[in-house]
Amino acid sequence: MFEIAELGQSVERDEYKKKASELRTQLLLIQDQLKDSQFPVLILISGVDGGGKGEVINSLNAWLDPHFMRTNAFAEPSDEERERPKFWRFWRTLPAKGRIGIYVGSWYSDPISQRVYQKIDDAALQVELKLINQLEQLLTDDGALIIKCWLHLKKDRQTSRFKALSKNPATKWRVTDKDRQHLAKYDVFLGIAEQVLTDTSTPYAPWLIVDGSDINYSRLTVGQYVLECIQRHLLSQAELKAKTKALVPEVLSKLEQHNLLDTLDLSVKLGKNKYKIELEKFQGKLNGLTRQALVVHRSSLLVFEGWDAAGKGGVIRRLTEAMDARNYQVIPISKPTDEEAAHHYLWRFWRHIPRAGQVTIYDRSWYGRVLVERVEGLAATNEWQRAYAEIVNFEEALLAHGMVILKFWLHVDQDEQMRRFKQRENITYKQFKITDEDYRNRAKWDDYQKAVNEMIMRTSSSKLPWILVEANDKYYARIKVIKAYCERLEKMLDEGKS
Amino acid sequence: MFEIAELGQSVERDEYKKKASELRTQLLLIQDQLKDSQFPVLILISGVDGGGKGEVINSLNAWLDPHFMRTNAFAEPSDEERERPKFWRFWRTLPAKGRIGIYVGSWYSDPISQRVYQKIDDAALQVELKLINQLEQLLTDDGALIIKCWLHLKKDRQTSRFKALSKNPATKWRVTDKDRQHLAKYDVFLGIAEQVLTDTSTPYAPWLIVDGSDINYSRLTVGQYVLECIQRHLLSQAELKAKTKALVPEVLSKLEQHNLLDTLDLSVKLGKNKYKIELEKFQGKLNGLTRQALVVHRSSLLVFEGWDAAGKGGVIRRLTEAMDARNYQVIPISKPTDEEAAHHYLWRFWRHIPRAGQVTIYDRSWYGRVLVERVEGLAATNEWQRAYAEIVNFEEALLAHGMVILKFWLHVDQDEQMRRFKQRENITYKQFKITDEDYRNRAKWDDYQKAVNEMIMRTSSSKLPWILVEANDKYYARIKVIKAYCERLEKMLDEGKS
Repeated sequence: MFEIAELGQSVERDEYKKKASELRTQLLLIQDQLKDSQFPVLILISGVDGGGKGEVINSLNAWLDPHFMRTNAFAEPSDEERERPKFWRFWRTLPAKGRIGIYVGSWYSDPISQRVYQKIDDAALQVELKLINQLEQLLTDDGALIIKCWLHLKKDRQTSRFKALSKNPATKWRVTDKDRQHLAKYDVFLGIAEQVLTDTSTPYAPWLIVDGSDINYSRLTVGQYVLECIQRHLLSQAELKAKTKALVPEVLSKLEQHNLLDTLDLSVKLGKNKYKIELEKFQGKLNGLTRQALVVHRSSLLVFEGWDAAGKGGVIRRLTEAMDARNYQVIPISKPTDEEAAHHYLWRFWRHIPRAGQVTIYDRSWYGRVLVERVEGLAATNEWQRAYAEIVNFEEALLAHGMVILKFWLHVDQDEQMRRFKQRENITYKQFKITDEDYRNRAKWDDYQKAVNEMIMRTSSSKLPWILVEANDKYYARIKVIKAYCERLEKMLDEGKS
Repeated sequence: MFEIAELGQSVERDEYKKKASELRTQLLLIQDQLKDSQFPVLILISGVDGGGKGEVINSLNAWLDPHFMRTNAFAEPSDEERERPKFWRFWRTLPAKGRIGIYVGSWYSDPISQRVYQKIDDAALQVELKLINQLEQLLTDDGALIIKCWLHLKKDRQTSRFKALSKNPATKWRVTDKDRQHLAKYDVFLGIAEQVLTDTSTPYAPWLIVDGSDINYSRLTVGQYVLECIQRHLLSQAELKAKTKALVPEVLSKLEQHNLLDTLDLSVKLGKNKYKIELEKFQGKLNGLTRQALVVHRSSLLVFEGWDAAGKGGVIRRLTEAMDARNYQVIPISKPTDEEAAHHYLWRFWRHIPRAGQVTIYDRSWYGRVLVERVEGLAATNEWQRAYAEIVNFEEALLAHGMVILKFWLHVDQDEQMRRFKQRENITYKQFKITDEDYRNRAKWDDYQKAVNEMIMRTSSSKLPWILVEANDKYYARIKVIKAYCERLEKMLDEGKS
């Protein structure tokens, strides 16, 4: 696959100057249009060592306006990064809509180098590439433009470039021991690179292989490619916008017939005395378990969804009462801030992923995408429909990092909800909890019910089950939740021991 | 000062339950009012080990709604924190307006423990306390409410509490070696605590000393105090808002007579050929110097202010051309995002403070507070007037961390500005750079000039000088800036060697 990039293409100095100057003007103009657009641009510059990555990146930075772009280089992860799932460090650097992010050493660096040095086998590499494709698809589905350039260099040229750099005292520093080590592995490296490029050259994010033998040629080629990609994307996004309505597939409608929520026995109850005893017992237990989880650096993530007035706040309070305030955080999800709105909808959840051992409780969550955003029409049909897979992939990434994840749906029936609305209106310190919007949501009960059913069907699995909580009786619901969290922590701690 | 907190005050179990329940209702109600207010609340819980800090924090978390508050515990700093000025880790956790942040182990922990273990002397402690007072004043001046509670415990009670905790297998883990170590230092600790509390009990952020001998008593006392502080602050902020206009002191007006900018010789020029030679020379030099700075982990912060069309962008481009894109970041400052607007105006600058060895270039900066915000009336007079000291303190904190700071004012005269406006309108890829706003700003030249003069007078010092750049000639300006940065880096690197 690299043959065409080994022809030794080059460009004359004068021609380079002329073309670079024209290119710069065009890049600045297109960047200005980009600023008002609704998508971010990610430019990944990878390739063979000595292939001119640094030079290409620097010329992109010189041609474009650095005010609206950011170059992200990934060296060793910081401790804050190591304590989180591995893609967290990439999520935190994702450019906002209208901005450009350049990636030197991206999500490709680690898998390739680990495979070259045989720290992972081929199957493990395949898994990594699958995750990368998922990430790139998720971003491009949301409109992002991902431009991937691979700077290639023939082995003999790489050797001679290193020699040239090493000879000159001014550039000697640029050839590191790591580079020399890589050079010895050139053939292995190339074989793996071929595989990676093949498997990740998707229709939504293809690779461009660039002949890196002449640096000015590489600069122009990458610059021109970036320009064209952005031009094309600006056009296609505008077209897509016009067509969105037509593209929308039909919503599945058979689901209405089966209502999972109806299968719950809402008459289950727990007496006050029994509740008090159980609460004390399980809160005590939870206190110990969360402390042990902290010691072994295992984080938890608890997701609460449910009908308005189903008692999410009350359940959360019974959980937090049992924990040390220094180790948990409750994240209420409502309207995104403007920084959040300028990113992929999962970005705002990634940013709250806790450090090792911490507990994060989401009061409403990413499931809003397939609940409120679906029902209220805030997300297009194709957006919420693909969200199921996006969400499952997101949760699996957290799971793979060793996080404990629990998802609760708190279910009450319509009569109980109304009773609680009325009750809230009569309790001084709860009045603020009830608004007109609650009544508006209630009127859409059937639509929400349909959405809840589909959500559970599509995102519940043995690894990541939804726990449906019968919540007409608050006491019963609270104990069920605390107990479930205790059991999951116990299981995790037991597995850790064996 | 601790006598009153050694009386051994306590509260009966039944009374506690009754009072706690009332308090909770009131706290929830006031928190709901707080949500719509324009200030954040910081609650610092410090004190003697075993004084019940954890218990008090947990009860505050149980009484208040954890959705709108966050408990921040500070253990060892992460590497990302260590690479930045020490207050950075506090800035990143500051609550937004309407939210509550609880601090366990705050900016007080390190100075006290370092003094107890004689890692710093008394003079150094004084300096730390001064910085703390500056931080607290800066936040409260901006409307923040800072509530500081110190939980006191007599020596014999501390001893017996540790004994009791150690005996019980369920609580044994809570007494650490560090606690035992601290216990041995009780008297020293108390003497230093007294000094710290005295020096930092300011009118804007006084300490409340709480008798920690009975945990329920401490819980109620702190809870009640928090409630009253928030109630009082809500009232006083409302009053303050009504009075703000009347409070505004007279603007200094004598300054108009002296115009620093007039002293610049704007006729200085550099020929094109000389420019090219010098540019190549100093860019080469800068490339080497920034690489060396990276090796020794010294960050730089470059601030650019100047008239519209003074050539900031061009200067910045000549700087970045000489650096590796992986090591710098250009931050354009325009309208704050809503997350930024919900914090102190310096928060948005703290968040971009670079990690070790990195270069951050601010195109416009915190000086907007005393320039555009002053002239356009976006900041009240007392706000921009106190900003001079706030800014100097901010920059000194960065300097103390070892950062290299350069501040440039790019000066052109009105004729040259008009010439450039016209020119921009005729160059395709620069058209977007000229808007009606530029003409509006130009009409306020005299007001801006006055503001610039006062800014330079109040924020230029031998440690943190403003570098005034004669920018009618672009070539001259660019070389002056690059040269100045080179010289500063050389000086820093030289000092590092000796």
